[in-house]
Amino acid sequence: MANPTAAMLVIGDEILSGRTRDANMHFLAGELTKHGIDLIEVRIVRDHAPAIETAVRALSETHDHVFTSGGIGPTHDDITADCIARAFGAHIDVRDDARALLEAHYDKSGQELNAARLRMARIPDGAALIDNPVSTAPGFTIGNVHVMAGVPLVFQAMVASVLPALTGGRPLLSQTLRLNRGEGDIAATLSELAAEFDDLTIGCYPFQTNGVFGANVVVRGTEGARIDAAITRLAKEFEI
Amino acid sequence: MANPTAAMLVIGDEILSGRTRDANMHFLAGELTKHGIDLIEVRIVRDHAPAIETAVRALSETHDHVFTSGGIGPTHDDITADCIARAFGAHIDVRDDARALLEAHYDKSGQELNAARLRMARIPDGAALIDNPVSTAPGFTIGNVHVMAGVPLVFQAMVASVLPALTGGRPLLSQTLRLNRGEGDIAATLSELAAEFDDLTIGCYPFQTNGVFGANVVVRGTEGARIDAAITRLAKEFEI
Repeated sequence: MANPTAAMLVIGDEILSGRTRDANMHFLAGELTKHGIDLIEVRIVRDHAPAIETAVRALSETHDHVFTSGGIGPTHDDITADCIARAFGAHIDVRDDARALLEAHYDKSGQELNAARLRMARIPDGAALIDNPVSTAPGFTIGNVHVMAGVPLVFQAMVASVLPALTGGRPLLSQTLRLNRGEGDIAATLSELAAEFDDLTIGCYPFQTNGVFGANVVVRGTEGARIDAAITRLAKEFEI
Repeated sequence: MANPTAAMLVIGDEILSGRTRDANMHFLAGELTKHGIDLIEVRIVRDHAPAIETAVRALSETHDHVFTSGGIGPTHDDITADCIARAFGAHIDVRDDARALLEAHYDKSGQELNAARLRMARIPDGAALIDNPVSTAPGFTIGNVHVMAGVPLVFQAMVASVLPALTGGRPLLSQTLRLNRGEGDIAATLSELAAEFDDLTIGCYPFQTNGVFGANVVVRGTEGARIDAAITRLAKEFEI
């Protein structure tokens, strides 16, 4: 049986302007791979309501899961929760369960739960809260969309809250063979190998270190024995 | 007049599996911002022909420029050039001008221009070559799509070859004000400021350093004087 599929939607002007380098995509990709969920596509869009809604709808229809990152804080440019609600045709307002979490948190820290912070309790009807052990303000899951914060520490904690409850498939395994040859010298052999081991994916990533050309060949699949067989064959072909 | 818009398409299983952390998106974002071209959307897709073709068509129709990264090397998983040709309905084969570049390069380095390497001379009819001063194998521009390599050094060199010829708009300028206050304490003021300065975008990026909560407020726009005015107002509001 094929693994479940996933897409990610990263929301934020600061990524697209080059001010901030996104770290969440790379983290999520690694976690999903370990969990046996195949990340198929990533989109990065601005803090712009039509762009967010269009992307969420498109990705939600074509993948088993969608993970979003960014735009759920207390400021005016945090519009993700309302956009997701609209994409699902769900009513959204400050919800009592989320408000109770924030009240307890700000009571303890002696800060005011003002109108801006209360926006972080806006949760669509029917959504399940995602636990945020770092800074309390929750994410949420509605339909097949998991809505999470952009701050990497919080995003990572939310992924840890969400992933164990999702049915994974077979983890994607991989092995890497480093060859000190130009990519063009090994391409024909790789092509034959890829045709024979068509249940695996075989990638080739060239590098250049101190003027020496080489390539890392990465063999991926869900069956360890098959990966072993492909790597063994490859090593033999190149007399390693 | 509004700035030209751009989208980026990153192609590669290795990014989506979490093996490799993409570096090209962040680089391109910064370069486009300096050049006055607005990066509106990024998509990352697998080495999978239908995914590449669908994304290229969609992005090419909705943006002034599309920049792609990855999948133009000599191995079997390098399918980008053929996919782009199909997306444009263009014929593709080894082209004499690209072949001549590769012949000269491999003659000089004493390596064989074998069938695999010759694949890097597959260029669609009507495309203009993009210079690659790092490793010779060219990228190309067809229609409004600029097809470039995934290896960061090569990608960066190709961007430097392409960008000067593109008409830019007004560079996006920005100033950052660091406030040692929780995001929730400044959100209301930022919201008023954003409404008043509606020609600027005002972003708020929270941080936590040694237990102190703070936020960087980033004001972006094309008119330096307006950004100055917004930052001055903000500093006054918070008595900095």
